[in-house]
Amino acid sequence: MKSLLLVAHGSRREASNDEVRALTARLADRARDAFDEVICAFLEIAEPSIPDALQGCVERGAREVVVLPYFLSAGRHVAEDIPREVRSKQLEHPQVRMRITSYLGAAEQVPELILELAGG
Amino acid sequence: MKSLLLVAHGSRREASNDEVRALTARLADRARDAFDEVICAFLEIAEPSIPDALQGCVERGAREVVVLPYFLSAGRHVAEDIPREVRSKQLEHPQVRMRITSYLGAAEQVPELILELAGG
Repeated sequence: MKSLLLVAHGSRREASNDEVRALTARLADRARDAFDEVICAFLEIAEPSIPDALQGCVERGAREVVVLPYFLSAGRHVAEDIPREVRSKQLEHPQVRMRITSYLGAAEQVPELILELAGG
Repeated sequence: MKSLLLVAHGSRREASNDEVRALTARLADRARDAFDEVICAFLEIAEPSIPDALQGCVERGAREVVVLPYFLSAGRHVAEDIPREVRSKQLEHPQVRMRITSYLGAAEQVPELILELAGG
C-alpha cells in the first residue's frame, strides 16, 4: 500500500485548513492509480499532526509514504521541521519507506501555471 | 504595455523573498509574448510594496496590470488586503486597467502538479 501525505503549514483560520482538506479529497479522487490513499497533515495549529498522520498510514498497512510539502518557499519548515518529524517516524518504522518530495513552489511547472493563471 | 505583478506575502527570511524574485526573473524570460514586464511585490515585510510596484508599472507606461497573488490559500490577505491596495491605486490611475487573478492555490492545475511532483 502506498500513501501520499500532503503537509501544509496549518492556519488559525479554519477555512484555510479546510481548503487543504478539500484539495486532498480532490487529489484522492484523481490519484487512484498511483496512490492507495491521499491524506493531509499540518505542521502546526491544525490536526492531524505529521507524526499522527504517518502513524495512521503505517497502521493501515502502508509500505511507502510520499510526503509532499505544500509550501511555496524553502524556509525552515521545509528544510528542517518536516524532515525532522518524518525522520523520527521513519526510525520507529524502518520497514516503511518514507520519502519527502520537493515542496510545491519548487516544481518546475510553477512558472507555466502562473502564466496560464495570468491569462498570458 | 502590459505588466504582470506577482504578489507574495513577504518573509523575514530574505532567502524566501529572493526565491520569489528569482521566480519572477524566470517568468519574465518566459512571458515575453504575453507580458512586456513581469515584476514582484510583497504585501508585508519585504520591498517593493504593492502600491510602489503598481506605481512603477504606471510610470513605465503600463495600460494593463495583471496582479497574481502568489498564495496557497484564500485568507484575509487574498480576500481583503491585496484587493484593497490594488483598488486604492486603481482609483489614482483610472486609465490603467488593473485586475487581480485567482491566487495560485486555486489554480485548477494544482492537483495535477502535486501528483506529478509526487511521482504518481
